[in-house]
Amino acid sequence: MDFQLHQRVISWLKTAGDSLIASLNTNLMVEEKTNASDLVTRMDKEVEAYLTQQINTHYPDHRVLGEEGKGHSIEDTRGVIWIIDPIDGTLNFVKQGRFFGIMIGIYADGQPLAGYIYDVMQTDLYYGIVGQGAYLNDRPLQPLKINSLAESLMVTNAHILVGNQFNSQALLGASLGSRSYGCAAYEMISVIRGESALYLASRLMPWDFAAGVAILESLGFKYSQPDGKALNLLTANPGIFCNAAVYEEVLQIINLK
Amino acid sequence: MDFQLHQRVISWLKTAGDSLIASLNTNLMVEEKTNASDLVTRMDKEVEAYLTQQINTHYPDHRVLGEEGKGHSIEDTRGVIWIIDPIDGTLNFVKQGRFFGIMIGIYADGQPLAGYIYDVMQTDLYYGIVGQGAYLNDRPLQPLKINSLAESLMVTNAHILVGNQFNSQALLGASLGSRSYGCAAYEMISVIRGESALYLASRLMPWDFAAGVAILESLGFKYSQPDGKALNLLTANPGIFCNAAVYEEVLQIINLK
Repeated sequence: MDFQLHQRVISWLKTAGDSLIASLNTNLMVEEKTNASDLVTRMDKEVEAYLTQQINTHYPDHRVLGEEGKGHSIEDTRGVIWIIDPIDGTLNFVKQGRFFGIMIGIYADGQPLAGYIYDVMQTDLYYGIVGQGAYLNDRPLQPLKINSLAESLMVTNAHILVGNQFNSQALLGASLGSRSYGCAAYEMISVIRGESALYLASRLMPWDFAAGVAILESLGFKYSQPDGKALNLLTANPGIFCNAAVYEEVLQIINLK
Repeated sequence: MDFQLHQRVISWLKTAGDSLIASLNTNLMVEEKTNASDLVTRMDKEVEAYLTQQINTHYPDHRVLGEEGKGHSIEDTRGVIWIIDPIDGTLNFVKQGRFFGIMIGIYADGQPLAGYIYDVMQTDLYYGIVGQGAYLNDRPLQPLKINSLAESLMVTNAHILVGNQFNSQALLGASLGSRSYGCAAYEMISVIRGESALYLASRLMPWDFAAGVAILESLGFKYSQPDGKALNLLTANPGIFCNAAVYEEVLQIINLK
């Protein structure tokens, strides 16, 4: 991957992050999308517009798929596509003022090239360049060692567990316990750092998983739909995002009859 | 409360926190207590011994109640009692290297005088001096505004929700969602900062809640057992720890017949 492109992404993320921090004491103009916990603010829109504009200016032959629809209408995965989530965890952003992230995944012909997750309030930038490793604040990322689900924590959300979706109560019982941060960026970071062996999600849009998947790929970690099928970059997906050491075990527990 | 005592506590917490950070790349000598997710390390023991020794030296007429039993055997709440948790969230400490805290509560005749929660990896020190306010890193703590459960997040753990203990699924449905950090220190901090309206716990020992309760008291927040009874400082308790704006609503939902 192009070094100049990488430096540009980092610079854009810092600029966007600074604007989010500055916005926290202002009127965020919160609107509900599908329900009271699915929010959008003026900052989701502003950051997505900013990132899209930068990409369009510097890479006019690339396309942009963004959560707030400021990018292109995309129906195939040909060429280079930037998949961006201007604020992942908007509910946390609004209600907690932390535990949110900005995410960018870059894909070529449907394959991950690079992923960036910026934990704005921690000023921690995680990225992975496929084939060239994963990094945290420009140092090689060294995930904590994961051996088995029985010796590990997992991350998922409360509703999945309460509904026992994907046999999640069996996963919970097979692990040391579950954590829930309420934002895909944080759940992905937990797996990437080796703090959790598994992130289980019931419905992620491409911008929720594209960046994380590219970082997982850079680390040799495993991801798929819970039935083992590949994730689809153009639709909503359920997903499992795993340390390689537990992927087969997780698949087996989820798909027990 | 005595200023010199306050300064001593802060100094001890910083020293203890530094020793925890330094220990993260060493052999922690992890032992299981009641089960695989109930752990103790040499650092739990060392930090508790250090704090207990400091308290005994400077305040020989005070008593210490500590998680690892380095303090006194305590059967009544007379006089001044220090209630300490050397590492709250030992499982997170061992498996994640963050999301843990050191907690100290100081009580006189069973009433909270002061509470300290030190988020070691963030170097964030939260404290409350009853009657004199609550602070984060020596600045007045200004919790985010909470209006109602319907407009707020909550924190509790996965097993409570899966088992629908304390009508927790109804609480989940009445809120914007639940978060779970896996450590009482972090769950308390979430309520103290106004990031969550409620922390619901099924079984906390005195060292799990003593510090948090003193900070909540400093803020005018509310806490009790889920049936409304007062917490008992000498035994295990289920507990609700709430922003005052939602306490009555939470009690009502939990105790619906």
